[in-house]
Amino acid sequence: MATNGWKENVEETVRNIPREVKQYSFQTEPIPRLKYNDPEVEALIRNERPVILTDTDLVKSAQHWNLDYLYSNIGSGKHTVYSSFKNKFLYYDDKKLPNFPNLVLQTNHEEMTFQEFTEKVRNHKTGDKIYYLQQALNDSVGKSIVVDFVKFNWSWITEQQKKYKWGALTSNLLLVGMDGVITPAHYDEQQNFFAQIGGYKRFLLFDPSMFECLYPFPVYHPHDRQSQVDFDSPDLRRFPKFQDLRGYEAIVGPGDVLYLPIYWWHQVESVPNRGMTFSVNFWYKSGSDEKISYPLKPQQKVAMMRNIEKMVTSAINNHEEVPHLMRTMVLGRYT
Amino acid sequence: MATNGWKENVEETVRNIPREVKQYSFQTEPIPRLKYNDPEVEALIRNERPVILTDTDLVKSAQHWNLDYLYSNIGSGKHTVYSSFKNKFLYYDDKKLPNFPNLVLQTNHEEMTFQEFTEKVRNHKTGDKIYYLQQALNDSVGKSIVVDFVKFNWSWITEQQKKYKWGALTSNLLLVGMDGVITPAHYDEQQNFFAQIGGYKRFLLFDPSMFECLYPFPVYHPHDRQSQVDFDSPDLRRFPKFQDLRGYEAIVGPGDVLYLPIYWWHQVESVPNRGMTFSVNFWYKSGSDEKISYPLKPQQKVAMMRNIEKMVTSAINNHEEVPHLMRTMVLGRYT
Ligand SMILES: [Zn+2]
Ligand SMILES: [Zn+2]
Repeated sequence: MATNGWKENVEETVRNIPREVKQYSFQTEPIPRLKYNDPEVEALIRNERPVILTDTDLVKSAQHWNLDYLYSNIGSGKHTVYSSFKNKFLYYDDKKLPNFPNLVLQTNHEEMTFQEFTEKVRNHKTGDKIYYLQQALNDSVGKSIVVDFVKFNWSWITEQQKKYKWGALTSNLLLVGMDGVITPAHYDEQQNFFAQIGGYKRFLLFDPSMFECLYPFPVYHPHDRQSQVDFDSPDLRRFPKFQDLRGYEAIVGPGDVLYLPIYWWHQVESVPNRGMTFSVNFWYKSGSDEKISYPLKPQQKVAMMRNIEKMVTSAINNHEEVPHLMRTMVLGRYT
Repeated sequence: MATNGWKENVEETVRNIPREVKQYSFQTEPIPRLKYNDPEVEALIRNERPVILTDTDLVKSAQHWNLDYLYSNIGSGKHTVYSSFKNKFLYYDDKKLPNFPNLVLQTNHEEMTFQEFTEKVRNHKTGDKIYYLQQALNDSVGKSIVVDFVKFNWSWITEQQKKYKWGALTSNLLLVGMDGVITPAHYDEQQNFFAQIGGYKRFLLFDPSMFECLYPFPVYHPHDRQSQVDFDSPDLRRFPKFQDLRGYEAIVGPGDVLYLPIYWWHQVESVPNRGMTFSVNFWYKSGSDEKISYPLKPQQKVAMMRNIEKMVTSAINNHEEVPHLMRTMVLGRYT
């Protein structure tokens, strides 16, 4: 059985796991893996390129977090737990669900105590629903969790935040997933240090210029920011540029911290048959925009497209009219 | 030979001309033709529906304007004259020409005196260039033209401007075209009373919802607001919805005034073999927007699309990058 954290030979394991995982139709190259103080790190982060940092000790104080420890110490507050009969947990925005009353969701979420979650995990049998806890750490947690949290390497990460001129820390999301959970390809609108505590996660990353190959849902759709393409069975007639997709990938193990740049696409898979995974996200607002230079970066174009879609949806006051307007504006005119 | 203006039997002529003109692939229905004080007129104009008004006496004071009279009285100022070997005068915006240095224009324009223009017209032989004078009336014109201008029925038209809450009169364009000139389908961003002085013009009109069937050039293109579709040989692979085009048409003769609503598409053809045409446009800014109500009107959606295209072009700072962004935003996502 894998123990959590810093005792295993993480280096060797993350080197070997790629032979176990499934292959997709696109090519990937490895995400660089560097010691936190490697001189190459700074240029990568400054240029918003992903990198796995070792030895940051960012969440070393949480290396003992596992199901038993959290069961006993996280307290009796309610946590958001996603559940699904499939292993893909496609995110949805509750606020946008009323726009699509007939949308069929494979995933649900409910509020439950960590103890209830633990029971679901322990009693799990093949064919049962899979559970994935995703809860922002807040002050309802028990005292020893607070102590561990306070001992995170805040001095190091705050130094990074300042160096790269990021905005405020917005949240720390605790992720506890059963074996095999997959978060399908999407992008976030914040900078992220993804800190792995226990278990192994495979990251598939795609730079922001891959927007055109990944066909995100419209902004007013509950699956906003998520790719419409099913990686296991891509509809190449609807999504022909999926064939041009090129990515990056790496395995992240206990103690590793992935810098996941804003607007970079990511699919996150817990490596099958290696048990549960425990992770904490550090999400930061992007910095105040520098002076604009041309040509615009792909991520700036993504932001522009999002703003257009939001403005149109707001001005037209009925999202059902948006696709026709978008098609009218573009088809035969920019095609 | 047709004499100018109010002495001919205009009613009968405009009824008979439709049998002479060429047929296109789309259906049309007639534009209503009503006496200026007909009680139905107000609802039409208020709802931005085209209508031909008779007996307005709007430009009756100019009924004697013809080539000889203008030759002798318009003065020696320079006028903008378009010329072309073909009869289609596709408008272009000089300011946008630098965006497309390799664009081949069928039409040119130059500045010349009315006397030079008259000479071109009088010496015209088959196969020569065709000329079309389009000049805003200004205070450089001779005294007797000023007198005629001042006697336009300003009281009637100013009453209309107030009743429909239009903005300022922006210009009066004098149009003097040789037999057979055609202004291909486009829309303008102002309200227009089109006053016919001499000769017969055929108007083909399409309501603003026909935008999707007419595929205007991108906003940064010199042919902005003009349809890309060649009505005589439509490329139905590129412009499939041209097949859904439905329009309105009418013949406008001396003394007639066409209300041409803002954002309505129009192709204007001088009726072949009936001599030169003389017309004056009265262009008004649209009123300050009323309170917005939903669903938006087609013309409001057109204005929205124009704004988006302008914003994107400005933000991306290079019009050559616009089509790719537009396609990326829409294809596989809103199609
Ligand atoms: Zn994410
Ligand atoms: Zn026009």
